Amino acid sequence: MPTTHAELSRIAATLEAHYRDMQDVEFTVQQGKLFMLQTRSGKRTAEAALKIAVDMEREGLIDRREAVSRVDAAALDQLLHPTLDPKAVKELIATGLAASPGAATGEVVFTADEAEKLAADGHDVILVRTETSPEDIHGMHAARGILTARGGMTSHAAVVARGMGRPCVSGAGMLKIDVARGVMTVGATTVARGDTITIDGATGDVFRGKVPMRQPELTGDFGTLMSWADSIRRLKVRTNADTPNDAATARKFGAEGIGLCRTEHMFFEGERIIAVRQMILADAEVDRKAALAKLLPMQRADFVEIFRVMEGLPVTIRLLDPPLHEFLPQKDEEVAEVARAAGGDPAKLRQRAIALHETNPMLGHRGCRLGITYPEIYEMQARAIFEAELEVEARGGRRVELEIMIPLVGFLTELEFLKARIESVARAIESERGRSPHYLVGTMIELPRAALLADEIARAAEFFSFGTNDLTQTTLGMSRDDAGIFLNDYLRKGVVARDPFVTIDVDGVGALVKLAATKGRAARKGLKLGICGEHGGDPDSVRFCHEAGLDYVSCSPFRVPIARLAAAQAALGLHQKVIDP
Amino acid sequence: MPTTHAELSRIAATLEAHYRDMQDVEFTVQQGKLFMLQTRSGKRTAEAALKIAVDMEREGLIDRREAVSRVDAAALDQLLHPTLDPKAVKELIATGLAASPGAATGEVVFTADEAEKLAADGHDVILVRTETSPEDIHGMHAARGILTARGGMTSHAAVVARGMGRPCVSGAGMLKIDVARGVMTVGATTVARGDTITIDGATGDVFRGKVPMRQPELTGDFGTLMSWADSIRRLKVRTNADTPNDAATARKFGAEGIGLCRTEHMFFEGERIIAVRQMILADAEVDRKAALAKLLPMQRADFVEIFRVMEGLPVTIRLLDPPLHEFLPQKDEEVAEVARAAGGDPAKLRQRAIALHETNPMLGHRGCRLGITYPEIYEMQARAIFEAELEVEARGGRRVELEIMIPLVGFLTELEFLKARIESVARAIESERGRSPHYLVGTMIELPRAALLADEIARAAEFFSFGTNDLTQTTLGMSRDDAGIFLNDYLRKGVVARDPFVTIDVDGVGALVKLAATKGRAARKGLKLGICGEHGGDPDSVRFCHEAGLDYVSCSPFRVPIARLAAAQAALGLHQKVIDP
Repeated sequence: MPTTHAELSRIAATLEAHYRDMQDVEFTVQQGKLFMLQTRSGKRTAEAALKIAVDMEREGLIDRREAVSRVDAAALDQLLHPTLDPKAVKELIATGLAASPGAATGEVVFTADEAEKLAADGHDVILVRTETSPEDIHGMHAARGILTARGGMTSHAAVVARGMGRPCVSGAGMLKIDVARGVMTVGATTVARGDTITIDGATGDVFRGKVPMRQPELTGDFGTLMSWADSIRRLKVRTNADTPNDAATARKFGAEGIGLCRTEHMFFEGERIIAVRQMILADAEVDRKAALAKLLPMQRADFVEIFRVMEGLPVTIRLLDPPLHEFLPQKDEEVAEVARAAGGDPAKLRQRAIALHETNPMLGHRGCRLGITYPEIYEMQARAIFEAELEVEARGGRRVELEIMIPLVGFLTELEFLKARIESVARAIESERGRSPHYLVGTMIELPRAALLADEIARAAEFFSFGTNDLTQTTLGMSRDDAGIFLNDYLRKGVVARDPFVTIDVDGVGALVKLAATKGRAARKGLKLGICGEHGGDPDSVRFCHEAGLDYVSCSPFRVPIARLAAAQAALGLHQKVIDP
Repeated sequence: MPTTHAELSRIAATLEAHYRDMQDVEFTVQQGKLFMLQTRSGKRTAEAALKIAVDMEREGLIDRREAVSRVDAAALDQLLHPTLDPKAVKELIATGLAASPGAATGEVVFTADEAEKLAADGHDVILVRTETSPEDIHGMHAARGILTARGGMTSHAAVVARGMGRPCVSGAGMLKIDVARGVMTVGATTVARGDTITIDGATGDVFRGKVPMRQPELTGDFGTLMSWADSIRRLKVRTNADTPNDAATARKFGAEGIGLCRTEHMFFEGERIIAVRQMILADAEVDRKAALAKLLPMQRADFVEIFRVMEGLPVTIRLLDPPLHEFLPQKDEEVAEVARAAGGDPAKLRQRAIALHETNPMLGHRGCRLGITYPEIYEMQARAIFEAELEVEARGGRRVELEIMIPLVGFLTELEFLKARIESVARAIESERGRSPHYLVGTMIELPRAALLADEIARAAEFFSFGTNDLTQTTLGMSRDDAGIFLNDYLRKGVVARDPFVTIDVDGVGALVKLAATKGRAARKGLKLGICGEHGGDPDSVRFCHEAGLDYVSCSPFRVPIARLAAAQAALGLHQKVIDP
């Protein structure tokens, strides 16, 4: 039917031109006559959406602003992860659902606590669970990838993993997991805790051992669309990165700086933890300073590496934040081992661990409160940062825009107390080296009190970074570690529409962010404002940050392109569709 | 020197009349000539201050307003506690400092945890420590009195006990305390854990056994001054009382209602805890309801008693608030015992205790979150309350003004969900009995989000009660149980001037209270507003509540007169001197 075919082609072209989008049409031909039954915009993968948007712009059908608006920022996740090298020799051991894109390799662990602990020690881990529940969140955060035996595409594991940008294979039903024995079996194959596996969240495959990977393609259509997004957005996009490796990944994804470099992760590695524990166990300031002196060169070396990767860009370093008991061993055999390694008395170590125990560690002796009780800790960190800055410069590198961030401030006096200490370290360095460190001192806004008194705090703070994880915990009175159990009920019963730890609670937490932004800028013109909670990589939260007038968002490396696109869409005034967690 | 004496008398009378206050004068007589060297208002005990103020009003030297302003509200504490019967036969075993007024009898405990546990089980305890530290606060709250071997009048124990209105003897240096063995010795005398002692915080004496007491004299000058205060103040004063006994004490002290009746304390007593634990261990709603059915008559009986004491007055009852794990045993031997008593499996009980464990229980599954997960708990409580109301009326008593309070609300939807359940219980009662319960449903405002969204929440809430303890914990991000350790540092280093758990943090927490009061009243005209945190008995915090326009404060029974006087002084616009903790 050449005539009908020509007519159909002409109509299809008209429809595509009219709707300026790829069409999914239904038609019928009856007694030689063509009837068009329906047309609608066609569904597409992220890759196809990207190609269609860029192609249509090239064809002049849509402009760049519209092209940018055509790609779902959250779906971009599919394109941003490493994929397995197709030429690699692989031993397939199981298959499940392709629940969250990306490939990941790591050691098998069977509990969230194990995942957290090993990850803190620098291991890559894959969290394997029969199914996950909200109590596993911390382990999912810590793991490189997640594998479950039960659960579909909308299971807890799948939904949360996609939200976090973690590769996930769910519902691999042939897996038999025996947590007590620390093994999983698939037919005759056995994988024990600590064995390495590789999962491919784009296909649902699970392989034994480490499979070589290819890094995602960030050029071509992807690069083009991103460059358009960059020309539209007002919000800067930084990354949360604690290691040179993460920093480099994030730069590749277009990060324009580090918005949160946590220094405590550096305290866990290898022999450092011994010095950290010696510091915690010290009875006198002089012993504490001796232990800190051992840590100084290690911290300095960390910063040198990161500063070299980020040269010229802003880098926000958060001083020590978690309560000290997090660094101490909990189990008796570990205590004995640590006491031996740290050269101390196990009984004393156990006593110290008990003394440091807290009922609500989230609301306890942490953040700037540690800096005020033990100023020598923050002084050591300031010295390591400043010495690293001068060392990079001395080796011919460009200085970063250094921002030293004090966590958990609630009172102006806290910030003043610590800022004075940091300034005095800077002066000491200047007189030792004849060169001055350049830096800003600012604060996290992560307590309601800090937000309410932002004008007062801005008298000493040269920047604010909204720590919306903790601000959500305190404003809502919900511990992220504990809320899972009732948040599920809340979502099911319609008490809340969204998980406030995934998408910012605009009415509550958001109100405090806006209040603090307004008050802070009223007190200090041009005060730099950013956000560094997990929300920084969530498109709806990014839109909120744009509307609240923040200067930047900071998110995990793999979410940087999502934030870039979401920031552009926010600037275009688009409301992304809500993807309920 | 009769002439000089007459001249001195005349001048003294002139000075007293001029300054309208009792004077402390210095003079000298040289070669027969009288020289007046200095005059100033004389220092006085609370009792003397009271007598002087009332006498001077009677002499027409000052008016009632001034008389009310002359007595330090905080010092009133000295007059409000039971004293030992002077005729009683007593066995004195030790003497220390008279650190905080009042006499108390109870069983000796040597740790704060023990104090809390036994008090929860309904025992009167005296907390005995070598010295107290901020980590002991919960035990000090739970104890009837505090005895320490070390520390002066400004030691931690003394300062905190005075703040709480707890009798305290500090610095009883002859005490040798052996916590491990559970005994204290004074010379040849030994007192073991569980033995009863009596302390007299007004003299510093410690006696063996129970010594008969006389209740404080609340008439005479005291009653006169209080009646003047009552005629001046605008703020109502209620009490925090969980038992008929506390309620009766508070009424005697002039409480005009109950502002906070916690229902969980009723869950710990005797055999109730067994039914509570059966409820917690129930797998299915039907089993949970069976356990709740056992609790219903016990809760109803509690309320009947309290309503009879408080007839005609407002009574605010807070539905279950603490996380369920607080009701489960922690130690293995207790688990076994409980499993036996509750007819369950110890392994299952232990598993449930582990499952309920929370990282930050303060921010966990508690308050209205429990009510949403297990609506049948709040339904049982509502039924017990309503049935008690009708029963009191049926027996010819006057109904109280019943206020049912939902704790830890952050979202309007939470309140709506639970209010609907309570209303449906009320309708069921009405159709069963043919009489309707009368009640209001309101909420605690104890989360920053609730304060920020008070206008929205007021659409469903018929009253607000500010839970400033938890609001301080969340706004400042400070756990009251853990903050002691760094708050001491903060006070010493001048980072904060006052303990925010003693005197309300006006700039932070206070700002949220004012905001919520304004927003709440804008949304619901005449919304009843009160405060029920520990701050309700602190004079400076009472002044804040007056200025913020609240309707009432609620405090522990012994602090009711302090609050009445402080409220009058606030109405007079007086700024009480700050007594730093």
